[in-house]
Amino acid sequence: MANQPASNAKALLESNQKYAERFNQGNLPIPPARKVAVVTCMDARLDPLAFLDAKLGDIHVIRNAGGRVSEDVIRSLVISEQLLGTEEIIVIHHTDCGMLTFKNEDLYARIDDTLGEKAGQEARKYDFLPFADLEESVRQDIETLRQSPLIPENIRIYGGIYDVHTGKVEVIE
Amino acid sequence: MANQPASNAKALLESNQKYAERFNQGNLPIPPARKVAVVTCMDARLDPLAFLDAKLGDIHVIRNAGGRVSEDVIRSLVISEQLLGTEEIIVIHHTDCGMLTFKNEDLYARIDDTLGEKAGQEARKYDFLPFADLEESVRQDIETLRQSPLIPENIRIYGGIYDVHTGKVEVIE
Repeated sequence: MANQPASNAKALLESNQKYAERFNQGNLPIPPARKVAVVTCMDARLDPLAFLDAKLGDIHVIRNAGGRVSEDVIRSLVISEQLLGTEEIIVIHHTDCGMLTFKNEDLYARIDDTLGEKAGQEARKYDFLPFADLEESVRQDIETLRQSPLIPENIRIYGGIYDVHTGKVEVIE
Repeated sequence: MANQPASNAKALLESNQKYAERFNQGNLPIPPARKVAVVTCMDARLDPLAFLDAKLGDIHVIRNAGGRVSEDVIRSLVISEQLLGTEEIIVIHHTDCGMLTFKNEDLYARIDDTLGEKAGQEARKYDFLPFADLEESVRQDIETLRQSPLIPENIRIYGGIYDVHTGKVEVIE
C-alpha cells in the first residue's frame, strides 16, 4: 500500500491521536490508587493492566526482559514506595518466556557474530538474567526483594506465573 | 465493607479470573508483530498499549521509574532485538512525572529517616535517575542508546512526551 508508513514506530505514534481524542482521565493523582507495584516481563503478549483487571491510575507497572528484580527494579520500587506510597509488590513471570530459551554464553556468541567484537566485549559485562525454571525464578526474585535493605518488611510481596495460552495467573505461595 | 479483601494485591490477582474467562488470544507468537520496543515510565496513569493503539502481541513494553535508559533497559533491548527481532525503539517520558520532583540527596535523606542508617547507606549506591527537564531527559536517553555498542545503527530510535492531562504524545524530533 502506497500510503502505509515505512516505520511501525511512526505509525504507532500517529495512532495516538485516536486515543487522545477520546481521552477523559486527565485528572488522576500521581500516587497509584491501589498502592500496588507490579513487576513483570516486557513480553508483547502480556497486558498487565488488563489481566489484573486494573484501571488507569491504579498500579505502578515495571517491566523488563523476564520481569527480573534487577538493581533498576529496586530503584523503581524505592521511588514507588518512598515517594508514591505503594505498599505491595507483585512479581509475575510467564509461561513460554524468551528468557527460558538461552544462556548468557549463547547471547554473547550471537552478539560477537551479529554486532562484532567490540559489542561482544561490552555484552560480557552483562548478566542477561535468563532462567531455566519459572517458579524458581519468581521465588528467587521475591527473595532478592526480601533481602534488600531498601524494601522494608512491611511491604507485602506476592508472586505469580501468567499463562500466555490461557490468560490465567497462577499464584506462587 | 466486611468482604473487601485486606490486600489490594490479592484482590488484583483474584480479579484475573474474569480476564482468563474471556481470554481468546492464546496463540500469539513470541516476537512482537510490529517489531517495536517501547521504553516508558511505570506511572499508574500510563497505559502504553492503549495510548499507542497497539494490540496484544504487537510491541515489547519496558517500564521503570521515569522510563530512563538504565543498564537494565539496555539488557532488555538487546534481548528484544537479538532474540526477538525488534527493529525500532520509542522512548516516552511524560508530564507531571514524579522524577521531576526530587533530587538524589532528598531521597537519600528520606530513606535515612524512614528506613534507617543501613538502608541509607545502601541507597547511596544508587543513582535514582531523577531529572529536571523532560525534553532533555528524553534526548539524553536517546543519546545513551545511540552511544551503546549493543544497540546497532540500523535500529531506529524515536522519542516522545506523553501528556497525562490530554493523553497526547508529543514527538521529540
